[in-house]
Amino acid sequence: MRDQFYEQLDLIRSQLVDVTEDLRGVVADATEALLSIDLSRAEAVISREQAIADRLDDIEERALVLLATQQPVASDLRQLVASMRIIADLQRMGDHAVHIAKVARRRMPIPAVPASAEPMIRKMSAIADTMIKHTARLIANQDVQAAVELEQIDDEMDALHKDLYRMILAPTQEFETEEAIDLALLGRYYERVADHAVNMARRVIYQVTGERISMS
Amino acid sequence: MRDQFYEQLDLIRSQLVDVTEDLRGVVADATEALLSIDLSRAEAVISREQAIADRLDDIEERALVLLATQQPVASDLRQLVASMRIIADLQRMGDHAVHIAKVARRRMPIPAVPASAEPMIRKMSAIADTMIKHTARLIANQDVQAAVELEQIDDEMDALHKDLYRMILAPTQEFETEEAIDLALLGRYYERVADHAVNMARRVIYQVTGERISMS
Repeated sequence: MRDQFYEQLDLIRSQLVDVTEDLRGVVADATEALLSIDLSRAEAVISREQAIADRLDDIEERALVLLATQQPVASDLRQLVASMRIIADLQRMGDHAVHIAKVARRRMPIPAVPASAEPMIRKMSAIADTMIKHTARLIANQDVQAAVELEQIDDEMDALHKDLYRMILAPTQEFETEEAIDLALLGRYYERVADHAVNMARRVIYQVTGERISMS
Repeated sequence: MRDQFYEQLDLIRSQLVDVTEDLRGVVADATEALLSIDLSRAEAVISREQAIADRLDDIEERALVLLATQQPVASDLRQLVASMRIIADLQRMGDHAVHIAKVARRRMPIPAVPASAEPMIRKMSAIADTMIKHTARLIANQDVQAAVELEQIDDEMDALHKDLYRMILAPTQEFETEEAIDLALLGRYYERVADHAVNMARRVIYQVTGERISMS
């Protein structure tokens, strides 16, 4: 009975690692759809994310059943609770990937990202990619040190987000209103993806140490 | 033992009703801070929301302990699961109220909302207010009919959100870039608050009927 419980717990963890890796691909693809103005890619992002959301619902269901039927305590309880919170962050991360794809789709065939802002968006997406990769590894290995590094990478994301905002509002920039709004939204989405990666890292720390770090 | 369980379940529900009502006040206050350019009110929104977030963490903790120690099944399990999902929506709703207050604070002493957009923002806030009030009643009384009405009110919110966007992008409008971005963000925040009210209503339906309605 207990063995089965731990098997289930391991299965949930490995599935969360898989989903995190899949979402990493979805965010990268949303960026590609956005920058290469690729409608079918944008549509694919939206439907792939829906499949991921369904899988997350399924994992959550099983975590709840495990919680309700196995009466876990101490670190087992913490792991299940952390898993459920990680699921919530992954759901949110998926939402933001879809938001990015929808900005791309809404503006087609006009590029939502003007050429001058492209390098910045590409960089934000690359940082998000690195952060999600770290987070997947963290969930798999519970490496607390990697969580600290993740917070540092997040500082880069925050700095880029501020730079993007400054660029949008610079008096020398001649973005149209709709371009400015879309860029501001996009910057926000990438920054939120990064925030959820950091949140997930904090859940892992909580799971390992039992210490809760206040969430941003 | 079971009596104590139901007492705890009722307590969780009544606390969720209280928190929902408090958040309703916080969203209304965020709008007031925004439109009357009131810094101390904006600060108060941010700190009140933090207190609400702490209360939600506490309620969530107790729901999880109840789940892990009482092994509820069928409708009791559904109620606990629904409660935890309602908590997640309330957390998100609180985040959006804070986002509104932060837009207000960032632009002070300049009004973030130009006079021409004020009636629209006020209306979005009023609709959000009605929706949150309905949701609180729904959680209290599990009135499934009210959930259907809520979806209709949400359609008004969506229409207003589109109107606001059209207004921002109208060629006759002379909003500055920063104003346009802030208005687009604000519209989005109110619309998201409304979405979370609808989500919560759907959780209540799931709790009552066991039927899950696909979430937006």
